[in-house]
Amino acid sequence: MPTAHPPAVSATLREVGLRDGLQSVTTIVGTADKCRWVDAAHAAGVREIEVGSMVPARLLPQLADTEAVLQHALRLPGLVASVLVPNLKGAQRALAAGAHAMIVPLSASHAHSLANLRKTPDEVVAEVARIRAARDASGNRAGSRTIIEGGVGTAFGCTLQGEVPEAEVLRLLQALLDAGADRVSLADTVGHADPARVSRLFDKALHRVGDRLRYAHFHDTRGMGLANAYAAWQAGVRGFDACLGGIGGCPHAPGASGNVATEDLAYMLERMGAHTGVQVPALLQLRRQLQQWLPGEPLHGSLWQAGVIRTRTEPAPAPNTAAACL
Amino acid sequence: MPTAHPPAVSATLREVGLRDGLQSVTTIVGTADKCRWVDAAHAAGVREIEVGSMVPARLLPQLADTEAVLQHALRLPGLVASVLVPNLKGAQRALAAGAHAMIVPLSASHAHSLANLRKTPDEVVAEVARIRAARDASGNRAGSRTIIEGGVGTAFGCTLQGEVPEAEVLRLLQALLDAGADRVSLADTVGHADPARVSRLFDKALHRVGDRLRYAHFHDTRGMGLANAYAAWQAGVRGFDACLGGIGGCPHAPGASGNVATEDLAYMLERMGAHTGVQVPALLQLRRQLQQWLPGEPLHGSLWQAGVIRTRTEPAPAPNTAAACL
Repeated sequence: MPTAHPPAVSATLREVGLRDGLQSVTTIVGTADKCRWVDAAHAAGVREIEVGSMVPARLLPQLADTEAVLQHALRLPGLVASVLVPNLKGAQRALAAGAHAMIVPLSASHAHSLANLRKTPDEVVAEVARIRAARDASGNRAGSRTIIEGGVGTAFGCTLQGEVPEAEVLRLLQALLDAGADRVSLADTVGHADPARVSRLFDKALHRVGDRLRYAHFHDTRGMGLANAYAAWQAGVRGFDACLGGIGGCPHAPGASGNVATEDLAYMLERMGAHTGVQVPALLQLRRQLQQWLPGEPLHGSLWQAGVIRTRTEPAPAPNTAAACL
Repeated sequence: MPTAHPPAVSATLREVGLRDGLQSVTTIVGTADKCRWVDAAHAAGVREIEVGSMVPARLLPQLADTEAVLQHALRLPGLVASVLVPNLKGAQRALAAGAHAMIVPLSASHAHSLANLRKTPDEVVAEVARIRAARDASGNRAGSRTIIEGGVGTAFGCTLQGEVPEAEVLRLLQALLDAGADRVSLADTVGHADPARVSRLFDKALHRVGDRLRYAHFHDTRGMGLANAYAAWQAGVRGFDACLGGIGGCPHAPGASGNVATEDLAYMLERMGAHTGVQVPALLQLRRQLQQWLPGEPLHGSLWQAGVIRTRTEPAPAPNTAAACL
């Protein structure tokens, strides 16, 4: 039986800012700074980091050093170092590099899939089968242990196509697993999700594939990122993608304000009593560093303004009967 | 039996920007513009508006024209026009003006109560009893029908005191009703709430006092405003305070980024399938107007950037295999 509602209260945050975030900004962060980011996130308690994307350097020069950052990340104790791979060719690079995990993006919206990947969803499923065969042929090399994750995007709607039927999303999750993916995830690529829809789809998906559905990936396009994460958490999801400083977003989502901010999501989960293992103040410190690496680039999120909650011990401020707070 | 989980999917949004928002900004919006705001919110489908606060004009000059705005609002069909009253004196003004409802703020945190209201919570309860007696003595005048709402603030924690025991919040809700309040509400005055805490407290409170618990009031201090609103909705709450443009917040909450934005909350609820009666595009239009009334004042919220979801019908954009969205 699939375990739809695991009793554990641990949550895993996967930092995807080095991939989903940096692919969306024009600034190229140097390899040394990316490695500092990985180190600091790891030191803050993050235990999975998507360090880049195995695409040709000419297409995404920001991520051209993915192999180097991956090699660095692979040396950190207890860290799962993952990369995005758009196809078999990228997967072969990930296998050769010994990535711990590789995420194969699939778009449940056919229109978005063709626009973004030049393939139909089922062609991506077929590619996952080829990727699985490649891994199985890896013998005793490090790549033989690389986890294959099918990441189903536009799972909650699509700017190009509009509605994306739940049945199609569920079919594709199953198809990915049948084709050899070890685990799957659901992404609100273009910010169409709302908590009710998230609750409904994750509930069905978890009943269908159990804890092989590992990660929820939310954008904060219309401010509902944390609400959607909470709805997914309530449905039983225990893994979340997030970007430090809320950077990232999709070029097909106009006006997108980025991904859920890692620091905001970690704080919400911790306040809720979940154990993320993440030190939120350290993430806030790293966010300040990120702003220096991305000068002029707008960062997002809310926690950085007010900071974590500190109860004052000094005397109460002067009484103010005027502005009766409520 | 209290109805803890009503089956209805209608939600009521109470616009509190004219009170909670404007009391926090230094700009004084003129009476004519406030009336335009009330008119536009009403035209957009908002059916309850807190138009101001019955406090001495020297304390809050921004709200000195509350009576005038109230008289205007009272003429709009189907609109509940409410005011905040900090004490009996304010309540007498609200009764004389024939307000549809008056909200008496009480702070569940004793430290916050003394700092903000110069009274203990139980002294506020006693004041509510006096307010009820004043209403009961109103005879056949309009004020005899003025609803008394006890608004319990710092219900989820306090910057001054830290934890606020749930049992104390529940006791005060009951005490307010016993003292003669017609209904009660819960407010996260200083942005300490998280969805798990919201779910727990509203669940208990709704079981205790049923649908006499009418409104949830969330700040967005750390980005959890919508997540908290969703948690309250899940618990069964069907009324929400919100401020257009996310203005407002509490002077005792350092770094506060304001209240939940009316337009964001309305949109989330509508996307979830709830019926708010509110036209979100009209609220976005009104938000642009608000920015003109409050030049230089930072507005908050997220929806204004991306706008409501529109599915494109034009051809898909040029393929982009590089930035594989997820």
